[in-house]
Amino acid sequence: MRTIRVAAAQSGPIQKAEPRDDVVRRLVALLEEAARRGARLVVFPELALTTFFPRWYMEEETDVLAWFEPSMPSPTTRPLFDRARELGIGFSLGYAELTPEGRRFNTSILVDERGEIVGKYRKIHLPGHVAYDPDRAFQHLEKRYFEPGDLGFPVWRTLGGIMGMCICNDRRWPETWRVLGLQSVELVMLGFNTPSVNSQDSAEGPTQRLFHHRLSMQAGAYQNATWAVAVAKAGVEDGHALMGGTLIVDPNGEIVAESATLEDELVLYDCDLDACRFGKQTIFDFARHRRTEHYGLITSRTGARPPD
Amino acid sequence: MRTIRVAAAQSGPIQKAEPRDDVVRRLVALLEEAARRGARLVVFPELALTTFFPRWYMEEETDVLAWFEPSMPSPTTRPLFDRARELGIGFSLGYAELTPEGRRFNTSILVDERGEIVGKYRKIHLPGHVAYDPDRAFQHLEKRYFEPGDLGFPVWRTLGGIMGMCICNDRRWPETWRVLGLQSVELVMLGFNTPSVNSQDSAEGPTQRLFHHRLSMQAGAYQNATWAVAVAKAGVEDGHALMGGTLIVDPNGEIVAESATLEDELVLYDCDLDACRFGKQTIFDFARHRRTEHYGLITSRTGARPPD
Repeated sequence: MRTIRVAAAQSGPIQKAEPRDDVVRRLVALLEEAARRGARLVVFPELALTTFFPRWYMEEETDVLAWFEPSMPSPTTRPLFDRARELGIGFSLGYAELTPEGRRFNTSILVDERGEIVGKYRKIHLPGHVAYDPDRAFQHLEKRYFEPGDLGFPVWRTLGGIMGMCICNDRRWPETWRVLGLQSVELVMLGFNTPSVNSQDSAEGPTQRLFHHRLSMQAGAYQNATWAVAVAKAGVEDGHALMGGTLIVDPNGEIVAESATLEDELVLYDCDLDACRFGKQTIFDFARHRRTEHYGLITSRTGARPPD
Repeated sequence: MRTIRVAAAQSGPIQKAEPRDDVVRRLVALLEEAARRGARLVVFPELALTTFFPRWYMEEETDVLAWFEPSMPSPTTRPLFDRARELGIGFSLGYAELTPEGRRFNTSILVDERGEIVGKYRKIHLPGHVAYDPDRAFQHLEKRYFEPGDLGFPVWRTLGGIMGMCICNDRRWPETWRVLGLQSVELVMLGFNTPSVNSQDSAEGPTQRLFHHRLSMQAGAYQNATWAVAVAKAGVEDGHALMGGTLIVDPNGEIVAESATLEDELVLYDCDLDACRFGKQTIFDFARHRRTEHYGLITSRTGARPPD
């Protein structure tokens, strides 16, 4: 048994006007409660420091940049790092990253129990669109404000296991999970902000969207024999509902813990990383079963194309 | 609307001693009932003509070859083709294929409404093992009796849609679905024989195995916005239980029809192939969202390898 107690630290809504240091205080409170309850790793949501700003159409560069973090840790986020180091607890955190060169990414970092940033992931599967779209019930402008991640899907040996990260829409793409699985990942951390209604189909509401979320998480975990932790920002932000659905999935694809609210809430579970072994050594022993000679289209073709 | 009424024709068990022409009579009866009920396409299981013989360890080549079909159609299977042509109904059928060169594959063919074989798929993801394994509760010798398929994952324009096939264990591999999805597949046909208990873990019984089956089918359909039809051989064969679980999944990943027995049984559904369009044009518009530059490991690495 290599058991690590993981806390999925769901955030309730963060309103547009909420100052970032208030948000950090909420995250620190969750971190402290997680530590009190024995967690060694706390997973925070995607873009955990602000409202989900890609719902707002902005033309002015300065309006956009106001949502971004030019450094990490920063004066505002430093208290989270300090408290985690004092408590000897690791965490992952999503935020809008502005690089020194002015590039913008939807990023997640992994911080170990000494408070060191040991991993960084930049979201690869950006959903949504670039230009204002009058046909949508609301905007989803991730492709406007971020460029696709340029770091691939790395894994890290830390906190006693092989850890991976991805962000929100990445979970719907089996390529994400497989690239992590091919690196023997044992625990995948994912933060998300998912609207309760499909902006392009108002009939697709929270029941169907939670189903798709669970389905993607469970399939990704099962088919790669890994733990998976999905952490929502939830509830009504700026008048727009986020569906919630924080959960932890075991390497068999079973949901073992799930949030009960749309507020700040911890979901804890003791994840035995050795539970990944049976799947990785039998039905998903890739070395014995995968046939890469037939997978060529996955990397050689981007878009779908029907047969002639 | 491009609606095709599909019949998933589950087979109850076929015992080792059951003559193949008796089996074909059962298949013809299902075909006729499907036609009466308005189906235009009937999907039969994997290795639909015999018991699931890979559970039996055989050393003698002649014992093995007795389970194989050197031609298709053959005198024994001809009545199925003839009746389908008379009724103007297409079907897919799984069988053990022996080629003129003596190669052996776990194969599925697609027959159109004129009784012509228009497609052939040879199973790529063979589960199980090559040599007798005394540590298993029972044998699963697909890797002994078959070589991996050499035809890739083709799709065919027929019966009014873009059709694909895969077989049993292929459904657990997202690569299968993605290669089909990249060819704009609209309906995936899959036959299977899945034991009710994991031969390497007796604690993994039918509840968990049906869960994995549904999860794989639903995720594959959703993530590629395609219909999917999974057809079981079910019930107790040669004293060994097969779990059943014939089902039809819509392009949203929802199960819309499912079998109720472990016997010969039809599961029918009107599949509107145009229902694939919304997913293919929005969240799974591959051309806009896939980032193949980060998928390289999927084709360049076969087995999993942990980081240094």
